[in-house]
Amino acid sequence: MSFSFASPNSEEFRPFITWQEITDWAKIHYRDRTFSKDERIPTRPGLLYLVRQGAVRLVGSVQTNSKQLEVVEKVFVGLVGTGQPFEVSAQSPFNLQSYAHVDRTLVIWLYWNELDRWTHLRREILEIFRYQQQRKLLWLSILGQKRTIDRLLGFLQLLMAEYGERRNCGYCLPYPLTHAQIASAIGATRVTVTRLLGKLRHQGVISVEEENLICWIGSDR
Amino acid sequence: MSFSFASPNSEEFRPFITWQEITDWAKIHYRDRTFSKDERIPTRPGLLYLVRQGAVRLVGSVQTNSKQLEVVEKVFVGLVGTGQPFEVSAQSPFNLQSYAHVDRTLVIWLYWNELDRWTHLRREILEIFRYQQQRKLLWLSILGQKRTIDRLLGFLQLLMAEYGERRNCGYCLPYPLTHAQIASAIGATRVTVTRLLGKLRHQGVISVEEENLICWIGSDR
Repeated sequence: MSFSFASPNSEEFRPFITWQEITDWAKIHYRDRTFSKDERIPTRPGLLYLVRQGAVRLVGSVQTNSKQLEVVEKVFVGLVGTGQPFEVSAQSPFNLQSYAHVDRTLVIWLYWNELDRWTHLRREILEIFRYQQQRKLLWLSILGQKRTIDRLLGFLQLLMAEYGERRNCGYCLPYPLTHAQIASAIGATRVTVTRLLGKLRHQGVISVEEENLICWIGSDR
Repeated sequence: MSFSFASPNSEEFRPFITWQEITDWAKIHYRDRTFSKDERIPTRPGLLYLVRQGAVRLVGSVQTNSKQLEVVEKVFVGLVGTGQPFEVSAQSPFNLQSYAHVDRTLVIWLYWNELDRWTHLRREILEIFRYQQQRKLLWLSILGQKRTIDRLLGFLQLLMAEYGERRNCGYCLPYPLTHAQIASAIGATRVTVTRLLGKLRHQGVISVEEENLICWIGSDR
């Protein structure tokens, strides 16, 4: 399989210019906080959040009452890396939550109108959401695949293209992902994901490095 | 089930202000074209498209070569209504395509830098992408549900919240959707969708009106 990796780490998508300024501003105004791994990040609609350090995991849930039972299944719907913005404004029956994906995740928050003082940053943030929206369309294409192996392969490729870091063996995710998290993202069971990842390792498509980081070796051969 | 409907038809998300201006501009510069139902709309990365009339269907596909077989499954990943923008910039192995969802769909296209002359419109378009990105996170939450009925219910509610028009019976989609399209969106087979929709009709959760429009009646009772 051959596919070109996007360069999500390019400066283009990182508003570094006023980064120090906004970090200082957040500190002065008590708008920053550090979270431990898997700690819930409290969010409110109408606020914008910036990941200053670490990474944030977005998790969605839907309350349906099919068969009069309230079913709430938590679904991994995205990662927000360092330098990236996110917001959470869901309406019932939909719900979105955010968690620190790694230890010492530092998050800054501000009201949208406070961005008026940094018009350049505001524009860059909107451009990032534009980019993320395109990525989500691809993610949706993957989740529409009927076979679990196709969803898993597509999902891994999408993550690699977005977050993958070049290593000797190929591209590696900078964050660990549990099999349960992958399973929830692609609508599969954890057991199935464990089995399929084992198969992909055996086939040499992926490898699992230290700290459980998944690497994509490729499957051209 | 109770949930509040968003007001996607609110002026807030429709850049009406310079609409006539941009329509005239597009006509003069041969940047508008009308498409018949299900006709493919040719797109290029780097261009921005505006739906002037009708609606556009976005379809994604992924080429995976699991088991050395090229699998290409087309997935319905979104509708773009009148007054809304879209863009298509996918990279191999992902592919996005757009089709006129209804007859006489009129589309305008322009380069992003051409928007510099309409800064207000540019900002509004970016705000719409920001909104769409949030909606896609909810859509992803739905597709992560393991049971097909939950994915179907969530999907219908999401569409109703975004496009539903108030009618006597409840909220109706202004566009018809085939069972195959719904099936591709939620990773199910057409047969299953037909069966489940029949069940929901029988339970009085939905009704199907003239021209095959799906209406949401609700299921509180």
